Amino acid sequence: MPAGTTEYERECKYFDINGRQKRGMPQRGDPHHHPEVPKESFFRRELPKHCISFSSDEGKKLFREALGEGFMENYFTLAAQYRTQSEPAFCGLGTLTMALNALSIDPGRVWKGPWRWFSEEMLDCCTSLELVKKQGITLGQFVCLARCNGAQASVFYGSDSDEATFRNVVETTSKASEFVTIVSYNRGKVGQTGTGHFSPIGGYHPRKDMVLLMEVARFKYPPHWIPLSMLFEATKDVDAVTGRSRGFVTLSPSQEFCFWCSNNKISDKM
Amino acid sequence: MPAGTTEYERECKYFDINGRQKRGMPQRGDPHHHPEVPKESFFRRELPKHCISFSSDEGKKLFREALGEGFMENYFTLAAQYRTQSEPAFCGLGTLTMALNALSIDPGRVWKGPWRWFSEEMLDCCTSLELVKKQGITLGQFVCLARCNGAQASVFYGSDSDEATFRNVVETTSKASEFVTIVSYNRGKVGQTGTGHFSPIGGYHPRKDMVLLMEVARFKYPPHWIPLSMLFEATKDVDAVTGRSRGFVTLSPSQEFCFWCSNNKISDKM
Repeated sequence: MPAGTTEYERECKYFDINGRQKRGMPQRGDPHHHPEVPKESFFRRELPKHCISFSSDEGKKLFREALGEGFMENYFTLAAQYRTQSEPAFCGLGTLTMALNALSIDPGRVWKGPWRWFSEEMLDCCTSLELVKKQGITLGQFVCLARCNGAQASVFYGSDSDEATFRNVVETTSKASEFVTIVSYNRGKVGQTGTGHFSPIGGYHPRKDMVLLMEVARFKYPPHWIPLSMLFEATKDVDAVTGRSRGFVTLSPSQEFCFWCSNNKISDKM
Repeated sequence: MPAGTTEYERECKYFDINGRQKRGMPQRGDPHHHPEVPKESFFRRELPKHCISFSSDEGKKLFREALGEGFMENYFTLAAQYRTQSEPAFCGLGTLTMALNALSIDPGRVWKGPWRWFSEEMLDCCTSLELVKKQGITLGQFVCLARCNGAQASVFYGSDSDEATFRNVVETTSKASEFVTIVSYNRGKVGQTGTGHFSPIGGYHPRKDMVLLMEVARFKYPPHWIPLSMLFEATKDVDAVTGRSRGFVTLSPSQEFCFWCSNNKISDKM
């Protein structure tokens, strides 16, 4: 650094101090630019045909129609807290973080600076984060973490439920901003790569019978509309770790009030 | 851990293996629950009266109206990439990360796992991250980082611009999904706590002349609608570090095409 300059005046390696591009700036696609790119790396995946990207023209049309029919009420609180899961196996923790912040639950402890706030790394109660990094969490662990952090959680195992119940839950919670519904399903059953996955549901389109999935693995797939019946079928998939099916969960901020029932036992080997 | 149990069967400290709450579970507000909470910590701040929260009833009404008038077109790509800045001083990096991902720019290097993706920690070109953690970035550094990472950036210093130009930029980019407008302003000038801040603009309500700010410090304020003229005035504030005013920037994915002008010199002491 030349004498007399401050760190703020330090020159960028690609542009000079007057904003002019320097010679030798690496070009995109130049293999010398980012030598750390492994041969097998991915820049997003294409959605299967039956899924409609949130920000496509067709996705915007579905959004407008669903909004007009009143089924995007809890979209707004969720959208205000939309996030990407912070690790490739943190879909459960990312989904729960988003839900807890959307429900305005005070974590009662500090995130960074003076701010009380939820991030995935703070959800370290029911199982170790190192283990979660390797293999994710089960539906039971998700519910346990939700309750430990101040949410009321009602769980529905796909194998014990039916499509009409799922539709009723999605319809009801899409119309009420004080609830979040999350879904635990097998991606392979909806034509996507991967297996077990969690994401929140951000809205419902009744005529098309499609659900807006607020995908938390945004480095892979964008948020998208997906047929409700196909998503429900994917919740019936059995998780090999627990021997129980996946499912869906409604969350609300109160520990005092149970929306769906008064006794939700969690028994998939927490 | 009892013999014969797996890590997945490990009991949570607050709930037993059947989901029953154990005695002695700490209650919210119990000072013994989270002894690490400092006396001066904050759970969000209240918006000033002239700002309208995105997810309030009034905010939803503004959203519906602006959507109907066609000024929320680039909202969708931005909303799909909405994020919280990852450090208290990372508003500039958080805003840029959101914009680069919204513009579908391939970073050409891996985030985590096999995925190419932008996160704040990858924006380490024009200045050191350790310095950014302490004092944030300047408008010039923001533009430099945007260009180094594959975006076309056109910068407007508030002191060299006017409200009509700002309105024209906001109107135009709100109607086009291939652009993102970001604003660099002084929070104190819009009745909020804090000083220099960056956030993307997610839409425009023409009749109310209000802008949707996609607030990246979501641990502090929610996304909100704010009067355009007040926001523009706050871009004229002089940044003591550079001696130049703050301003606004349009970003697009192409390095080949300049939307607003063909020669944008950056000279605020990069």
